[in-house]
Amino acid sequence: MARTYIKDISKSVGSEVTVKGWIDVRRDQGKMVFLDLRDVTGKVQAVVLPNHVEALDVAQKVRPEWIVSVTAQVNKRPERNIKEGVINGDVELEVLTIEVIAEAQDVPFELGSEVNLDTHLDLLPYTLRGEKYKSIFKVQSTILKAFREFLITEGFTEFQAPKLIGEDAEGGANSFDLEYFGHTAHLAQSPQFYKQIMVGVFERVFTTGNVYRAEKHATSRHLNEYTSLDFEMGFIKDHTDIIEMETSLLRYIISALKKECTREFELLNATFPELPENVPVMKLREAQQIIKKEFGEDCSQEPDLEPQHERWLCEYAKKNFNSDFIFITHFPISKRPMYTYEDENDIGYAKGFDLLFRGVEITTGGQRIHNYEKLVKSMENKGLNSNQFRYYLQAFKYGMPPHGGLGLGLERITSKFLGLENIKEATMFPRDINRIDNLLSQ
Amino acid sequence: MARTYIKDISKSVGSEVTVKGWIDVRRDQGKMVFLDLRDVTGKVQAVVLPNHVEALDVAQKVRPEWIVSVTAQVNKRPERNIKEGVINGDVELEVLTIEVIAEAQDVPFELGSEVNLDTHLDLLPYTLRGEKYKSIFKVQSTILKAFREFLITEGFTEFQAPKLIGEDAEGGANSFDLEYFGHTAHLAQSPQFYKQIMVGVFERVFTTGNVYRAEKHATSRHLNEYTSLDFEMGFIKDHTDIIEMETSLLRYIISALKKECTREFELLNATFPELPENVPVMKLREAQQIIKKEFGEDCSQEPDLEPQHERWLCEYAKKNFNSDFIFITHFPISKRPMYTYEDENDIGYAKGFDLLFRGVEITTGGQRIHNYEKLVKSMENKGLNSNQFRYYLQAFKYGMPPHGGLGLGLERITSKFLGLENIKEATMFPRDINRIDNLLSQ
Repeated sequence: MARTYIKDISKSVGSEVTVKGWIDVRRDQGKMVFLDLRDVTGKVQAVVLPNHVEALDVAQKVRPEWIVSVTAQVNKRPERNIKEGVINGDVELEVLTIEVIAEAQDVPFELGSEVNLDTHLDLLPYTLRGEKYKSIFKVQSTILKAFREFLITEGFTEFQAPKLIGEDAEGGANSFDLEYFGHTAHLAQSPQFYKQIMVGVFERVFTTGNVYRAEKHATSRHLNEYTSLDFEMGFIKDHTDIIEMETSLLRYIISALKKECTREFELLNATFPELPENVPVMKLREAQQIIKKEFGEDCSQEPDLEPQHERWLCEYAKKNFNSDFIFITHFPISKRPMYTYEDENDIGYAKGFDLLFRGVEITTGGQRIHNYEKLVKSMENKGLNSNQFRYYLQAFKYGMPPHGGLGLGLERITSKFLGLENIKEATMFPRDINRIDNLLSQ
Repeated sequence: MARTYIKDISKSVGSEVTVKGWIDVRRDQGKMVFLDLRDVTGKVQAVVLPNHVEALDVAQKVRPEWIVSVTAQVNKRPERNIKEGVINGDVELEVLTIEVIAEAQDVPFELGSEVNLDTHLDLLPYTLRGEKYKSIFKVQSTILKAFREFLITEGFTEFQAPKLIGEDAEGGANSFDLEYFGHTAHLAQSPQFYKQIMVGVFERVFTTGNVYRAEKHATSRHLNEYTSLDFEMGFIKDHTDIIEMETSLLRYIISALKKECTREFELLNATFPELPENVPVMKLREAQQIIKKEFGEDCSQEPDLEPQHERWLCEYAKKNFNSDFIFITHFPISKRPMYTYEDENDIGYAKGFDLLFRGVEITTGGQRIHNYEKLVKSMENKGLNSNQFRYYLQAFKYGMPPHGGLGLGLERITSKFLGLENIKEATMFPRDINRIDNLLSQ
């Protein structure tokens, strides 16, 4: 008999079905056995009654995580046993036969148990099967799908950025180095150079892929390998075009999540982000004045925002604009990368922005320098050797339109959208200074 | 005035438009200047007449790859000047004003010129702008989009596989090593272990991303970094389920290409792949008998196919089944990785396959061992230390369904679909033993 997915069982009340999946929980009451069965689509309770002798015999042997194929009669539950609002809360399987597809060893603890992060990470191939993590990564895959869908609709072309690079776009301190046939190569910290080059080809491009930071500290915010979602677009007026595109992108992603992941948000007790029609946008200097006025701290001489400042600004945006998002523009050019475009009307400051969301920065973006001579000069001003960047510079030598873009960390937005405490919970197989799958010290 | 994309110009005959883009070609006839303008959507011819003095002045200064904003009157071409079958072959722009957005230096050669591969690679930020390469990478992005669309429809969940790994899935000879906080890490050669682990979570998964092979030879087939398209699915009958899924996937991709990339295939003089209703599937031993009978070479004692054998088998499939594809199954288990599933009814041979297409192998796939004890034993038989794989083995310890999957190289199928001579032409920024962007010897 063809397999019925557990989510579809209630359509078959009164009929027989074959369900395949894992034993989630087993309760042996001697004369009969209750089994919670689990497949990718959900769970259902099954009961093995005394009259099905062979099935009962198997049911008494099976253990959590054994994989079985069950044929069963789908019964409506008696009124008093119906669980409202639970998938399959109104049906129950009466098991006719059980076939063991694969056995499992004793599990270390019940799936979904509260365990500390290290235990969770040690046992990921098991713990990822819990409803919490399945929900997190369902949300993550939906964000990624929506990111691509939106940009394709907006005329962007996807491209593959290399991760093995010869020179380092963002400075060398945080780069992983490797031996490459007698030379030193690096792992890319971002696809920045390549996406700019590709603007010369396709005008609007995006790329998604792993990037690397040799972070020497293991915190709840940092990862040594993460998934960067990047886009870059040509023929812009200035950085405000990027802000507008990101706002529309976020609106699309949130609407996709509302459509496809309501159950997951509920299960994780998460709240959909508030993105009002007008998201606040202000210069760093204005933001610093607000911090002074509203929160009493004078940080107006600082070139950047501290984590506490980011939290305050988000509090301010939420209170005054009912927005979980706030764009801060015009950071000092001295603190930004060499490709940053300086505002001609506000010398010393960048036509760029950070996007803050629920207390932390989730995007850095802006307009880039598109003029060859200016870019070379900017490199020199930063003490960089422009010859090292000659490959990248070709794009500008041969005509580049005004352009800009941004990068988003997939794991970071997943964890912030869902209100997770540690970014590692939103990373399928996180790497940090202490761990690649197993602890490195073992 | 809002920008009009070049592909849409013919809808505006009789009106004024603003076009933004690159100067593709400029022909100065003294009294008037002809300009071919290019944007991401196509090309159009523009003429600057003597009566538009200011525009003529600018037109005499601009050079190829300068970026301009042009306002112009869209005119129908006189009957005798219409170019049939060419986009905008029936219209011409009469330029009213030209604004220079960005200048460019003298280009090394006209875009689209035939140059040798090394010159092309040295100048990628420029040469990728040519129609040939734009078409290749448009096709590539369409293949990738169709791959994801199809699998999502089939209930697969996307996940992010890490590329920084502690132990090496496929054996160490071809692995890049890097220093990782006092330990040695490797770059992943495939997402194999992680996609199998994720079958325990989502049953059906796919992932796309860069993988690495420390290939020491620079050939027309090999890359040191490429994009691997992988899927893995649980609750299968055997490897034939994977063959069926791949056939449907390819059918979907080819139909997407026919819908979205007909112009690109024409421009590249490429032929859409022939995928008949019944793609031939045969065991290696049968294939070897065919080679003996049809092509006169006895390779029946060999454990694998040589390149010439692959070409012959494709020739045979094309002639007898009008198929560009042929699946070869049941390679000797001794030549396959430790996770390969042995056919109980054909001991010594794998429930796995290679897919050959137009003379080369484009996929390796099959069923995997899902039983913990069998997998440990298989590792030991291959002389591997199972403790090294203890992280991966947890998935099997805690219950795994019968499963299998496959991997496809995006650059390889792009180049084979399009009949390109060298895989580097289908790789945006190829890395080989001699080159990361620039030649390493420079």
